Amino acid sequence: MMEVPLTLDVILRRARTVFADREVTSRRDDGALHRTSYGAVAARVDRLIGALHALGVRPGDRVATFAWNHHRHLELYFAIPCAGAVLHTVNVKLAREQIAYIVDHAADRVLFVDRALVPALLAALPDLPQELRFVVMDDEGRGAEAGLPGALDYETLLAQGAPLTAPPVLDERQAAGLCYTSGTTGDPKGVLYSHRAVVLHAFGCGMIDSLGVSQREVVLPVVPMFHVYAWGLPYASALTGARLVLPGSHLTGDALANLIEGERVTFAAGVPTIWNLVLQSLRRQRRDVASLRRIVLGGAPAPRALIEQWQHEFGVPITHAWGMTETSPVGSCTHAGSTWLSPDDPRDLELRSKPGRPVPGLEARIVGDDGGELPWDGVTTGELCVRGPWVARRYYGDGVPQDAFTDDGWFRTGDIATIDPSGAIAITDRKKDLIKSRGEWISSNALENEVLLHPAVLEAAVVARAHDLRDEVPVLFVVARDPAAPPAAADLIAHLAARFPRWQLPRREDVHVVEAIPKTGVGKLDKKLLRQRLRGDGA
Amino acid sequence: MMEVPLTLDVILRRARTVFADREVTSRRDDGALHRTSYGAVAARVDRLIGALHALGVRPGDRVATFAWNHHRHLELYFAIPCAGAVLHTVNVKLAREQIAYIVDHAADRVLFVDRALVPALLAALPDLPQELRFVVMDDEGRGAEAGLPGALDYETLLAQGAPLTAPPVLDERQAAGLCYTSGTTGDPKGVLYSHRAVVLHAFGCGMIDSLGVSQREVVLPVVPMFHVYAWGLPYASALTGARLVLPGSHLTGDALANLIEGERVTFAAGVPTIWNLVLQSLRRQRRDVASLRRIVLGGAPAPRALIEQWQHEFGVPITHAWGMTETSPVGSCTHAGSTWLSPDDPRDLELRSKPGRPVPGLEARIVGDDGGELPWDGVTTGELCVRGPWVARRYYGDGVPQDAFTDDGWFRTGDIATIDPSGAIAITDRKKDLIKSRGEWISSNALENEVLLHPAVLEAAVVARAHDLRDEVPVLFVVARDPAAPPAAADLIAHLAARFPRWQLPRREDVHVVEAIPKTGVGKLDKKLLRQRLRGDGA
Repeated sequence: MMEVPLTLDVILRRARTVFADREVTSRRDDGALHRTSYGAVAARVDRLIGALHALGVRPGDRVATFAWNHHRHLELYFAIPCAGAVLHTVNVKLAREQIAYIVDHAADRVLFVDRALVPALLAALPDLPQELRFVVMDDEGRGAEAGLPGALDYETLLAQGAPLTAPPVLDERQAAGLCYTSGTTGDPKGVLYSHRAVVLHAFGCGMIDSLGVSQREVVLPVVPMFHVYAWGLPYASALTGARLVLPGSHLTGDALANLIEGERVTFAAGVPTIWNLVLQSLRRQRRDVASLRRIVLGGAPAPRALIEQWQHEFGVPITHAWGMTETSPVGSCTHAGSTWLSPDDPRDLELRSKPGRPVPGLEARIVGDDGGELPWDGVTTGELCVRGPWVARRYYGDGVPQDAFTDDGWFRTGDIATIDPSGAIAITDRKKDLIKSRGEWISSNALENEVLLHPAVLEAAVVARAHDLRDEVPVLFVVARDPAAPPAAADLIAHLAARFPRWQLPRREDVHVVEAIPKTGVGKLDKKLLRQRLRGDGA
Repeated sequence: MMEVPLTLDVILRRARTVFADREVTSRRDDGALHRTSYGAVAARVDRLIGALHALGVRPGDRVATFAWNHHRHLELYFAIPCAGAVLHTVNVKLAREQIAYIVDHAADRVLFVDRALVPALLAALPDLPQELRFVVMDDEGRGAEAGLPGALDYETLLAQGAPLTAPPVLDERQAAGLCYTSGTTGDPKGVLYSHRAVVLHAFGCGMIDSLGVSQREVVLPVVPMFHVYAWGLPYASALTGARLVLPGSHLTGDALANLIEGERVTFAAGVPTIWNLVLQSLRRQRRDVASLRRIVLGGAPAPRALIEQWQHEFGVPITHAWGMTETSPVGSCTHAGSTWLSPDDPRDLELRSKPGRPVPGLEARIVGDDGGELPWDGVTTGELCVRGPWVARRYYGDGVPQDAFTDDGWFRTGDIATIDPSGAIAITDRKKDLIKSRGEWISSNALENEVLLHPAVLEAAVVARAHDLRDEVPVLFVVARDPAAPPAAADLIAHLAARFPRWQLPRREDVHVVEAIPKTGVGKLDKKLLRQRLRGDGA
């Protein structure tokens, strides 16, 4: 067989030729829509590769981005790896110490930043390496005036760039990207992605029982491009010819609902909190979202209440995907039996609230504390382990703990899960979020899901509090749907008591109605911060 | 990233675990249905690997099959490559000289043969290598009594086989399979498939805008497993959890229509002649084929009349795929724009009669006689060239002409095609089937398609006849729909004259109404034989 490497230029060539006319739409900072096409993006990528070379970027160098989802970020998604360099997407929501830590750890040579994000970067500037070059992406082409010392303007750079006469020859094992975990348990850890992993992941995500991206879709990745490749959707869309709609920095419920209606989005993806915001917006101001055939949730457990509300109020099925920075990221996707059930069938909702089967190409298993494999009976819980060609083998750099990677070739995810006989994974909790009560485990996730079904509750989080007699006890934080009518602690406990044994319930003094629950940079519940607050050592 | 090779044991493990209960149905020789599951198949594969080892089969050895589509052939599809050996599928329709040639050329060590095909093999026996071992597959477990010298019985062999304690470790670059072209232009040529190519092909075929195999399908591969992996459908089905229905040796229109109705087949694939047979059967005896969501045609140009008849009479959309032994085989698939058109829209029929875009992962282009690339304007014709990780780099063995493989890494297919701006390929003819008239080209394929729209015509073939003044002239062979009322030559010429210029039309003496048109071993029109007959040197 031909030696055709699995490298990102294969996807770029396909987008350039077969899908030259397919549109890529981005929301600019001023709210206007910018429209381009894969063909035009590819032509600019060629010039950008030349510009990167002129900046001194060489194969293997790390080049960072600090940006929202838009067409320039898409250009960098192709230009940096196709120049042989490593695309390092920096999470714009990180604290400035973390930003400085990972830019330093990655030893980035150039950093591309959105003009609107320059202030966030200026805060970290004193701690950033002196030799780091900045390129500012500005819709007006005035990035050089954005206040970053020595910064170049993206459009000016691109206008000066000329396609290389001999673009670098890529090897599928060479690094294409680098992303750091959000570091909820310590310093962020880096994962280096090979071209092969990224291309195979795009193939996996194009398959029907996986994300099922295809040319018939208009894809809205709300999940940020600054974190794990926006679940690979930009690459999967370019490979399959899906139209891309990129929301820029406009992530309010109203702005997203508006974009879905205006661009006839068919497929949207993001964390549960985002889809809660959009749902609230649609309840306030009805819009036509009938084009939306599917929302994929990921990044956090999918609250069943949210799935039911979208289904019943707007007829939009939500499916669930599971993944991690270490799995590129998509590891599993909801499936719904060998034939789809009616959306109103409770078994369908049940299936759609689970992360489903491993994506074709990946393998999963659950293991006990002794590392032994546990049965796929849908009941037994164990730590979820995965392996496959787009799963990390180690964390990037020296001096980083590597104990999540087992000697026999599996990655221990830290998620506690069951697997049923059909191969469907159900995450019961993060290992570190489980609550240990007198030697028995309480699932914070299960309590949260149940309390979210209470009509007065908008958001919920459960974390452990240390307890002298019982090891740990659950503490419940809720945000009221109507701040003027907060639910009573006794009501919430009574609601939970219908489904959980008494010893798993929070006590009245451990129920807190709060104004907001803190979120991490990627929109997940920030349980680390909640635990710090409980210990009195947090903000 | 983890070093997880793209080898067939990955697909086998997925079928064994995630899809253990999914059914595999086969039609036995006696007409009864045999039902098993991927889980049971996988368990038998383990024992078969042990049995192959006990027979002395070692990594790299070629092991042949001479069999129809059934569960035992599926077991061999996994066991032989997962034992590290090379699955050599021998076309059961070849002439005995060709069978002897390729078994000798491949140097097969063992040959697995259907009991019903033993007579065909006995004819070739004197020319087969002495040391070749035979294993006979018999539903009654009496293969040893089938009359082949020294033959073993498959079920007995399997019952004695024990899973290896240390199965071979596979490398993705090692050979998994071997298939020979049907040799319409000389000796059959072998193509060696790597594990990597076969696995990537299965991924490509699972994507929505490609074959789109998924767990929701009940797949009937009528295309034979003895030729280019039945278009990869057995592997794609096992990877995605599609139910497999295998028709055994029962390939009449009635038998297939019966199977589609009884097993609620949703997805069927085969050459156009097969779907013509099934159509005739359904016209004679109406059956419920409403489960059928899609028929994929390939292996020969898709007659537009056939597509229209299936659509209008039975509401079944036919789509078209293009491929060759050298492309594993799927190279391109019909697409129908960015949104599907109504099935009755003429533009939809137009799109579905083309082989469509290259499958994700493959690249295509057309070149002129000088090898220069030609534009994608939907009009300019040139020789279709393809490249990709499942395209052959060379033919197997020494002393075989390799001029189809260009120095710059493309395979010249011998098909003449246009490519339109959306990347859709349309094959206008085989290079060798074009008719050269005073320096201008006449497409035999276009004439055939048009004459098939004539109500009195069932089958048609056009080939060139040498002519002193005009270089070549077209000769038309047709089979009448009603043998009692054959069409008149003048009628057929008048029908063609509405669409083709006068110089492209056959003359009256070059129109032949015949009882049958000869087919090759894989059901294509045998134009080589027709040309021999015209020259008076054929049977």
